[in-house]
Amino acid sequence: MANWRIRVAVAEDVPDILRMIKDLALYEKEPESRVNNTEKALLRDGFGETPWFGCVIAEELQCSEENCSFPKKRAVGYSFFHHIYSPWDGRALYMEDLYVEPAFRGKGIGTALLKKVSAIALERECVRVDWNVKHWNKVAADFYKNHGAVCLDEWRLFRLTRQRLLELAGKKPEQ
Amino acid sequence: MANWRIRVAVAEDVPDILRMIKDLALYEKEPESRVNNTEKALLRDGFGETPWFGCVIAEELQCSEENCSFPKKRAVGYSFFHHIYSPWDGRALYMEDLYVEPAFRGKGIGTALLKKVSAIALERECVRVDWNVKHWNKVAADFYKNHGAVCLDEWRLFRLTRQRLLELAGKKPEQ
Repeated sequence: MANWRIRVAVAEDVPDILRMIKDLALYEKEPESRVNNTEKALLRDGFGETPWFGCVIAEELQCSEENCSFPKKRAVGYSFFHHIYSPWDGRALYMEDLYVEPAFRGKGIGTALLKKVSAIALERECVRVDWNVKHWNKVAADFYKNHGAVCLDEWRLFRLTRQRLLELAGKKPEQ
Repeated sequence: MANWRIRVAVAEDVPDILRMIKDLALYEKEPESRVNNTEKALLRDGFGETPWFGCVIAEELQCSEENCSFPKKRAVGYSFFHHIYSPWDGRALYMEDLYVEPAFRGKGIGTALLKKVSAIALERECVRVDWNVKHWNKVAADFYKNHGAVCLDEWRLFRLTRQRLLELAGKKPEQ
């Protein structure tokens, strides 16, 4: 029996979610200091009336049954997603993060998170789930391709940072 | 004086928006039939209580003044965008489309649309605007770089189509 379960995140999970966002940053060899988000902002933006994102977490259980009534309060993986909208096809989901703590890999948790995100996308009448992978990350690419994903390698991501937006909108730059 | 103006789209613009989505598909040498969206779905998803997307349009004016009271009801360009959410940085905007009819290019309409989207992003407390460009589309890439955009060329877009989502979620395939 698996000693973990997947569930939709609730407001009380915000500290765990922020910890795992930082863990993933470190895992990707990015300094934790690049994570500018805060518990307060995640709470406001993900758990209010019109949420900007959703999250599912993998939770370690203290007992060995899925319906254990005293789960350990420890998240060991998560997926972070939000709505997007295709002009051609309509409603869709975008997956920002999918992460499982290294000590918990190889147990099917990543697949279970991906299945849960897929189910949520279908519930919300989405036509697809999109996400980005760094081009050198063969492990991630292979994992996703094994689950039926395709790589749309024609596309390149472009960005206007906040300073550029201020310039374009004719506003004063921020300090 | 410019004979066009930029404004936020309203529900009555939906037929124009869908026409331009199809025009852009044709311009990109894609068959119009790949556009599965409908006026009904765009109306529901963009102009209800919790919109999935936003849109600004460039409108041709019949007179020569910006505050003309009898604008021609003809849209000649648009930008289509929606909210996204960065786990690291919070609220952001994603630009799905930016398009100006060929006969109206070279008048600054594309830049004006980009400025309007930038202003909307700032109003909504967004940290940035992201979008994708096909890697061979040098004209578009140069236009965006001239406006201060950067290309994050490490990333590759991945996708699970609806059929794959159904498989992953353990549901029956659709016909």
